[in-house]
Amino acid sequence: MRPIIPDYLAEVLGHVEPDSSGEPAAYIPELAAADPERLAAAFATVDGQVHGAGDVDVPFTVQSISKPFAYALALADRGFDPVLAKVGVEPSGEAFNEISLESGTGRPLNPMINAGAITVHSLTGPADCDPADRVERVLHGLSAFAGRRLAVDEEVYASEMANAHRNLAIAHMLRSHDILTEDARTVVEGYTRQCAVLVTTRDLALMAATLANRGVNPLSGEKVVSETVVRQVLSVMFSCGMYDAAGDWATQVGIPAKSGVAGGLIGTLPGRIGIATFSPRLDRHGNSVRGVSLFERFSSDMGLHVMEVPSAGQAVVRSNHVVGSGTGALRVLELQGGIDFAGAERVVRETLETAPREPQVAVDLTRVHAIDDVARRMVLEVARRLTLDGQDVYLVDPETILPDPDPGDGGRVTVVRTVEQAMAAGA
Amino acid sequence: MRPIIPDYLAEVLGHVEPDSSGEPAAYIPELAAADPERLAAAFATVDGQVHGAGDVDVPFTVQSISKPFAYALALADRGFDPVLAKVGVEPSGEAFNEISLESGTGRPLNPMINAGAITVHSLTGPADCDPADRVERVLHGLSAFAGRRLAVDEEVYASEMANAHRNLAIAHMLRSHDILTEDARTVVEGYTRQCAVLVTTRDLALMAATLANRGVNPLSGEKVVSETVVRQVLSVMFSCGMYDAAGDWATQVGIPAKSGVAGGLIGTLPGRIGIATFSPRLDRHGNSVRGVSLFERFSSDMGLHVMEVPSAGQAVVRSNHVVGSGTGALRVLELQGGIDFAGAERVVRETLETAPREPQVAVDLTRVHAIDDVARRMVLEVARRLTLDGQDVYLVDPETILPDPDPGDGGRVTVVRTVEQAMAAGA
Amino acid sequence: MRPIIPDYLAEVLGHVEPDSSGEPAAYIPELAAADPERLAAAFATVDGQVHGAGDVDVPFTVQSISKPFAYALALADRGFDPVLAKVGVEPSGEAFNEISLESGTGRPLNPMINAGAITVHSLTGPADCDPADRVERVLHGLSAFAGRRLAVDEEVYASEMANAHRNLAIAHMLRSHDILTEDARTVVEGYTRQCAVLVTTRDLALMAATLANRGVNPLSGEKVVSETVVRQVLSVMFSCGMYDAAGDWATQVGIPAKSGVAGGLIGTLPGRIGIATFSPRLDRHGNSVRGVSLFERFSSDMGLHVMEVPSAGQAVVRSNHVVGSGTGALRVLELQGGIDFAGAERVVRETLETAPREPQVAVDLTRVHAIDDVARRMVLEVARRLTLDGQDVYLVDPETILPDPDPGDGGRVTVVRTVEQAMAAGA
Amino acid sequence: MRPIIPDYLAEVLGHVEPDSSGEPAAYIPELAAADPERLAAAFATVDGQVHGAGDVDVPFTVQSISKPFAYALALADRGFDPVLAKVGVEPSGEAFNEISLESGTGRPLNPMINAGAITVHSLTGPADCDPADRVERVLHGLSAFAGRRLAVDEEVYASEMANAHRNLAIAHMLRSHDILTEDARTVVEGYTRQCAVLVTTRDLALMAATLANRGVNPLSGEKVVSETVVRQVLSVMFSCGMYDAAGDWATQVGIPAKSGVAGGLIGTLPGRIGIATFSPRLDRHGNSVRGVSLFERFSSDMGLHVMEVPSAGQAVVRSNHVVGSGTGALRVLELQGGIDFAGAERVVRETLETAPREPQVAVDLTRVHAIDDVARRMVLEVARRLTLDGQDVYLVDPETILPDPDPGDGGRVTVVRTVEQAMAAGA
Repeated sequence: MRPIIPDYLAEVLGHVEPDSSGEPAAYIPELAAADPERLAAAFATVDGQVHGAGDVDVPFTVQSISKPFAYALALADRGFDPVLAKVGVEPSGEAFNEISLESGTGRPLNPMINAGAITVHSLTGPADCDPADRVERVLHGLSAFAGRRLAVDEEVYASEMANAHRNLAIAHMLRSHDILTEDARTVVEGYTRQCAVLVTTRDLALMAATLANRGVNPLSGEKVVSETVVRQVLSVMFSCGMYDAAGDWATQVGIPAKSGVAGGLIGTLPGRIGIATFSPRLDRHGNSVRGVSLFERFSSDMGLHVMEVPSAGQAVVRSNHVVGSGTGALRVLELQGGIDFAGAERVVRETLETAPREPQVAVDLTRVHAIDDVARRMVLEVARRLTLDGQDVYLVDPETILPDPDPGDGGRVTVVRTVEQAMAAGA
Repeated sequence: MRPIIPDYLAEVLGHVEPDSSGEPAAYIPELAAADPERLAAAFATVDGQVHGAGDVDVPFTVQSISKPFAYALALADRGFDPVLAKVGVEPSGEAFNEISLESGTGRPLNPMINAGAITVHSLTGPADCDPADRVERVLHGLSAFAGRRLAVDEEVYASEMANAHRNLAIAHMLRSHDILTEDARTVVEGYTRQCAVLVTTRDLALMAATLANRGVNPLSGEKVVSETVVRQVLSVMFSCGMYDAAGDWATQVGIPAKSGVAGGLIGTLPGRIGIATFSPRLDRHGNSVRGVSLFERFSSDMGLHVMEVPSAGQAVVRSNHVVGSGTGALRVLELQGGIDFAGAERVVRETLETAPREPQVAVDLTRVHAIDDVARRMVLEVARRLTLDGQDVYLVDPETILPDPDPGDGGRVTVVRTVEQAMAAGA
Repeated sequence: MRPIIPDYLAEVLGHVEPDSSGEPAAYIPELAAADPERLAAAFATVDGQVHGAGDVDVPFTVQSISKPFAYALALADRGFDPVLAKVGVEPSGEAFNEISLESGTGRPLNPMINAGAITVHSLTGPADCDPADRVERVLHGLSAFAGRRLAVDEEVYASEMANAHRNLAIAHMLRSHDILTEDARTVVEGYTRQCAVLVTTRDLALMAATLANRGVNPLSGEKVVSETVVRQVLSVMFSCGMYDAAGDWATQVGIPAKSGVAGGLIGTLPGRIGIATFSPRLDRHGNSVRGVSLFERFSSDMGLHVMEVPSAGQAVVRSNHVVGSGTGALRVLELQGGIDFAGAERVVRETLETAPREPQVAVDLTRVHAIDDVARRMVLEVARRLTLDGQDVYLVDPETILPDPDPGDGGRVTVVRTVEQAMAAGA
Repeated sequence: MRPIIPDYLAEVLGHVEPDSSGEPAAYIPELAAADPERLAAAFATVDGQVHGAGDVDVPFTVQSISKPFAYALALADRGFDPVLAKVGVEPSGEAFNEISLESGTGRPLNPMINAGAITVHSLTGPADCDPADRVERVLHGLSAFAGRRLAVDEEVYASEMANAHRNLAIAHMLRSHDILTEDARTVVEGYTRQCAVLVTTRDLALMAATLANRGVNPLSGEKVVSETVVRQVLSVMFSCGMYDAAGDWATQVGIPAKSGVAGGLIGTLPGRIGIATFSPRLDRHGNSVRGVSLFERFSSDMGLHVMEVPSAGQAVVRSNHVVGSGTGALRVLELQGGIDFAGAERVVRETLETAPREPQVAVDLTRVHAIDDVARRMVLEVARRLTLDGQDVYLVDPETILPDPDPGDGGRVTVVRTVEQAMAAGA
């Protein structure tokens, strides 16, 4: 059953692979030397399933994707008021490296632009933290989000520092407004180390899933930050995460997201899923070209948009019971609501877990109002597997909500309009 | 059972009533003469329940709250591309009456500022629509959202036109960029009529609920606009609806919303609820002072934030079955997930609909991970009613997820840790 | 003697004539239909000499060149405080049709951008002026600057009004800020008439010379506005007259100037000269391409830059006396200071007026520290004329301040180092 | 004769002395500790006369007043093109410490804001200059403008560097745009030393006079920079020197000027005079409060406005001759043009130099069209001195151009309408 999502991901990767537009970041040799053909995507669900395709285990530097996580850590370490006093939450409508300070106060507009992120770095750890301890605090926190110990790429760090003119400018400006209260260069060094942490696409998917899962890492079970912090972080990612194309992203993709200059891109659907992609070529906004395409596809294929009426993953199986008995016994999986990727995933697992032994199985779609393409494939794959196990499979689908119900590869389903028809057929 | 939500609303209204800060809009006599003490709030659920408190039936002009609905109509009437070609989706970070045109093209940044809304008005109806037909198209559309025929307040209209200097400026500017292609003044007249449509708080709650319900009016069942349109409208409301305080609103309240200068304020939680409030005194952003407080309270009390992990209203009742028989028969309502207002509302109605006649009733919270304050009260009210009907009520709450389980007013519940304990107690 | 300056102007026109870059304004048919090859330049001195070359008598619409003159009229009619209360004096660094209102007050930044000029129009005439009287007041005032009765081109006016979207936008915006207190459209109509006044290059040179001459028209002798008003107008022209290229113009050309969209361009050197050019093709700033080249050439050839140390036109002839007598009589014209066009013009006229009859004439340059090319030619032309009249001409030039002293065309000068040498030579 | 101008200056200082509004700069202790009551003003003419009153020899740091002079040095050292390629000439309309970089190129808008001035510092000296040599180059150049060897206040320098956050920010930003090509901190150190050069009000007046005198120090006779450079510097001072109040200054005062945060303020009238004032209390723009008042007074009293029709200082004495003989001999000083301070100063000196011994002296104002108040006093002082020497003084003033002709203190003049009347009276 597992391959369904990786297969889907592999197919979507294949779709975007020919697009070689854009260029890898070139401001330091380490990024310029990245293999531009690298390509990966991974999904991590809130219950800890990680599905990936492509170069999901190739390490690269986290860069700006560290921003929402460091923001979460600062909010957790210092509380909301001290952080909000120094960094705003308003979209800037500007590029990532614009200074964008609030007139008068010098407060960076939001934590996703560099000015805000540098300030946020200085707000992680306790107030009297020394610079080395702060870097360790951030590294420890990012590791908790990822569920494994991460490390800094010291070469990238050194190269970035040699080219950190603009961030130094920003930090000195913040220092002049007393937004930073420590030595400007030292803070930039810490922030640059934060950006040089090595991650894989799998790590990023889990980090995103930790945000999706109320701050609890779905694999380790560690509560990294509180739900209130997560809500704040996701809100800010939604409106400020994609810089000057924030409105386009919010309407078309609708997933709180963050990109990094090394080619990473993450998205979080609260309560549902963390997504990560990796492809080094960037568009003029500094976002991964193929990463953006992948997210557009995911959003469109799977209805992963925060303004979509959410389906209820955990309750998509309304009931799971048996009617009749003996050779006439019919296992009924009654589904409900809108079934998207997360819901279908639940169906797949519930089916496997309950391992129905009845000779007939009915998947009852009467109460389902929508099913997206990925979910459709997954339901059909369940049917195929059951067929191969020798069971007869009925699809109770009075309104043809599931079009083209052919599981292929030896699978077979009979479409009926009522459970009674399935019982009659099986009898 | 009905009074629970009105009681909650009345209580919250009482909480904000003493705040007399702010001033009603004063730029026209009709608005200046509004009774500043008017106060109302209403909830409309996606299945058509409307709950209100205060002056919910007092009419006032819709003003800028018409903007998201007219945007929906334009998208429906013309399609996405022609509308997006003329009006962007980027937050402006500016006040509502800033011109905020995109450099070069003259395209208004978004449909929630006046420049965008005036353009949107010109894009409603068919392309060759004459001005009077267009006003009728908009009026008809707003009426469909509200579920009743609405009308224009002609006095307010005339007074607004006499003071429409800024909107005329904006319209002439749009005309100079060929964003408007018709006579500037005529378009402003149409737009001003759109703003002068009279609505009640109840109407607004239903209009918001129509957006929450995939574009289908929950009472009339009319499909006003498509789900795709709704998604676009809600995305734009979320990032641009509250003008220059968009980021604060997005993080703290987290509800796609829109305010009007007459004192109305609406919010939509997709798939869940439409909310409207009315109180004429405005803050410096032009938003209703008490309306903003009410939304902050609703968001906080009920977890109504789009970045909260959504509970699944329709599936909060995991099962509803009877164990045992005769005098030992126990009706078990097995709840699950996070229970918020919308979920609790479902519980209340499922309980009423199934009218349990068993002598014992157990509300099983074992699979509930969170329950907010309003939902807690609603569940306890169910218990109280059942008690008064002579039934014994058990709360299966092994992790004390529902604190202080006293229904009051003659109600009584017994807290147990398992359904078996309830059965044993009942036996 | 007259032809010297026309010859110079004709030569300079010939130099720029091949440049056919740029395009005439095309927003109304009347301007689009202008003959793009028209080319003219005229100088008017503060003592009323007008020299021209090319199409100096071809009429075209004054357009934005009316702005400084209407500003002068408003200052004269209402006084400084009421005008400064409504229109600022700060450079906008923006294009002419940017709105550029001061934040908060809505005050246009300066009278040279349209917003300021529209406001200025409304401030001409007495406070209770009706619109038709105001247009007559402006027309009368512009006529006084020009020294002849001017008229409005009603076709251009009508065509401009049909395309006045942006100015209407600006006027309604000004009305919304109470910067305009009358009907916005009516003010735009008046302003548009002001812009449609027909002038020739000769008129414009005289209008500019009136500013150069302390507000007194050099031909009619009419005091049109006070010196204080002139100083204000020239200051504002200097910093705001050339829109977004103000700094380049101020440094490179250094002449308070104003351009019009019909191809006119004027410049004023206080106390010295008014200059006008005409060529309809415009650059991207909306300034006449060949007009800008001409002014660069004039500034460079003649030292016409307000930050040049000014030579003293009226006192360039330090003394004019005769030494010796009889056939040995030597007329000595003792010049001093830096001699530019205006100074040389004075020399020419002083020579003609005093009509030296002595057999020898010495032009004594001992106290001259600089002489520009145009002045050099004019001095040599004086020498040539005297030669032709049978007089011997000596140039007393111990420091070779006047290079290449060949008057050509039958003229002849003898260069000596002292007046004594000239006397000795003549004797 | 000398005391006239110092007396005038002392009187004007007395007038502004009671104004104790504003505060000295407080960002470093050295400036905060300045005696706020210090007050000085000095005039230096282009022929090297320096007149002062108040604390003209008290040293203070030159600060931003170094900017135009360093700009002159950079233009002289590197030529126009390399400097213009890195620093623009457009007014910024912003405060001195705004970054104000040109979009895209990162080029500072002008050399008077800090970003431009830091860049300019890096462009002084030869291209391969080491930092210490460059500081020496600037110090040597400023000394040449002042006419004496200046020195850096190392304490102020050290204190400024400890607070140079904003300038460091600016320099790193410039480095990120490759506008600076050297180490950002090193350039800021050099620039900060440039600002910490100690000068007196007398020095500043001579520096300003060097600009007024075509780049030649009027005392030392050293040609510091070329006329072309001076013209560029004065143009930029005029439009950008007074920061965000540039338009007000340009219209009301009309003198190319520059202020420093230590309380200095200079102004240059090309060809005429250099002015400096000193008073440490600053207004909100960072300009000396009493310095601004002094300049307003100078401009108003003396017609020192670049858009005034310039009088011709060097030729104000049209002739100086004797008519009649013996006891009837009448010395005639024929004046002409507009007589301002600079012109009157020339009259005073011509009178002293020629030491008229005739029993009668006529000052002939027939050809004078204007005389300002300071000039009036100076002419009357000449009359008074001549009276005291036993001479009869006539004022030939047919149009009463010189009102209230009472020299006081024993002086006496007889007003007549023609030189002939004076001769008749004297005879």
